[in-house]
Amino acid sequence: MPNQHISSAYDRDLDGITTLIMKMGGLVEEAILHATQGLVTRDVELAERVRAGDKAIDALEFQINEEAARTIALRAPVGRDLRVLLTVLRLAASLERIGDYAKNMAKRTSVLVDMPPIQGAEASLRRMAREVQGMLRDTLDAYTRSDVALAEDVRQHDQDVDQMYNALFREFLTHMMEDPRNITACMHLHFMAKNIERMGDLTTNMAEQVIYLSTGTMPDDPRPKSDTTSTLTTLN
Amino acid sequence: MPNQHISSAYDRDLDGITTLIMKMGGLVEEAILHATQGLVTRDVELAERVRAGDKAIDALEFQINEEAARTIALRAPVGRDLRVLLTVLRLAASLERIGDYAKNMAKRTSVLVDMPPIQGAEASLRRMAREVQGMLRDTLDAYTRSDVALAEDVRQHDQDVDQMYNALFREFLTHMMEDPRNITACMHLHFMAKNIERMGDLTTNMAEQVIYLSTGTMPDDPRPKSDTTSTLTTLN
Repeated sequence: MPNQHISSAYDRDLDGITTLIMKMGGLVEEAILHATQGLVTRDVELAERVRAGDKAIDALEFQINEEAARTIALRAPVGRDLRVLLTVLRLAASLERIGDYAKNMAKRTSVLVDMPPIQGAEASLRRMAREVQGMLRDTLDAYTRSDVALAEDVRQHDQDVDQMYNALFREFLTHMMEDPRNITACMHLHFMAKNIERMGDLTTNMAEQVIYLSTGTMPDDPRPKSDTTSTLTTLN
Repeated sequence: MPNQHISSAYDRDLDGITTLIMKMGGLVEEAILHATQGLVTRDVELAERVRAGDKAIDALEFQINEEAARTIALRAPVGRDLRVLLTVLRLAASLERIGDYAKNMAKRTSVLVDMPPIQGAEASLRRMAREVQGMLRDTLDAYTRSDVALAEDVRQHDQDVDQMYNALFREFLTHMMEDPRNITACMHLHFMAKNIERMGDLTTNMAEQVIYLSTGTMPDDPRPKSDTTSTLTTLN
């Protein structure tokens, strides 16, 4: 017998909220890409668009919160239905924070365009941003398709982002030590790198929420972590 | 006629959750203070305790999430009662993130103890941390007493934290430019300063949630913002 899905008022509400999450996710993916593209192509206008666009992302989070609260109040969901709605609130909160990081990056872009470029750093930042944007797209796909394997794959990818960040951190230290005139630019670029690394962490949290939603338990193998810079003492 | 408060099953559940939030808040306040105290007093063991203590904070967030979900499922609250529970979830999520920042600071402490101290920086970090810890205590008080004026006061204080951060950022740049041997220590200390500044932002978000809870609207005068370092190009 094929699975019968009985469409209910709750399901229709949830579909509406999922549509909002996807819309929000799309805007955040775009913000991540544009924030680094603006830097690489010295496009201050693009960076400005990222900053201005954050308002739409915040408004969507507000709308998702309102819709989820309305659905809980009206439909009084329990069990898995309630868990889905509470998870959706967490996903929206994470997306909002990723959007904030993109906005912060775009702010620095408008300063960095007037400084001499740091060899290789901008291309590396763009690679990191592309990686995180791909992870976010996969996480949202995993959510809509309840695809645990894909969400698990995102968790593994976070290591790559951490490794890219570690390499960049060392590069920035080298550039600063070689020439003090690089220090201010490197501090800003390093902030951008750290922001992208945090976006990766947030996306990984989201992937873990998707796994929790599908399986009822959080992944219990420790998350692969490779950001080792907090204990870095030398540069060898 | 005195206000009659009819105690209900919902109220008892909420009281239980509030107790958990206060316990979590107390642990996070302590983590903030100890993370910087460990640095100033070169106390690696204290820093290690902050790192280990983060597990208890995470466990409390998990417990609060479970209790809130259980209360929503059992009591099917609507209107203000539901809003309170959804806000409590947000407060717990913010506390968990502040705890993470304290843990990250403590990690760096164990590295920094082996480096030459940077004149004045550690005392400044401790002052910033005390300020944020005070803001967090006031926010939790404002929550239990529904004290909008106190929560509004926290929002205003965030400016002081931002200004302390701006001053430190400039100091670090100066130290790095003066002597490249300061660069690695300054990068770690700067991370710690940025973490405290972010804790202040998160605490301010919490204060805004408390205001929202009491008044039904988010504060609409723009939040005072004084972190200007993202657009800093020179040092004068």
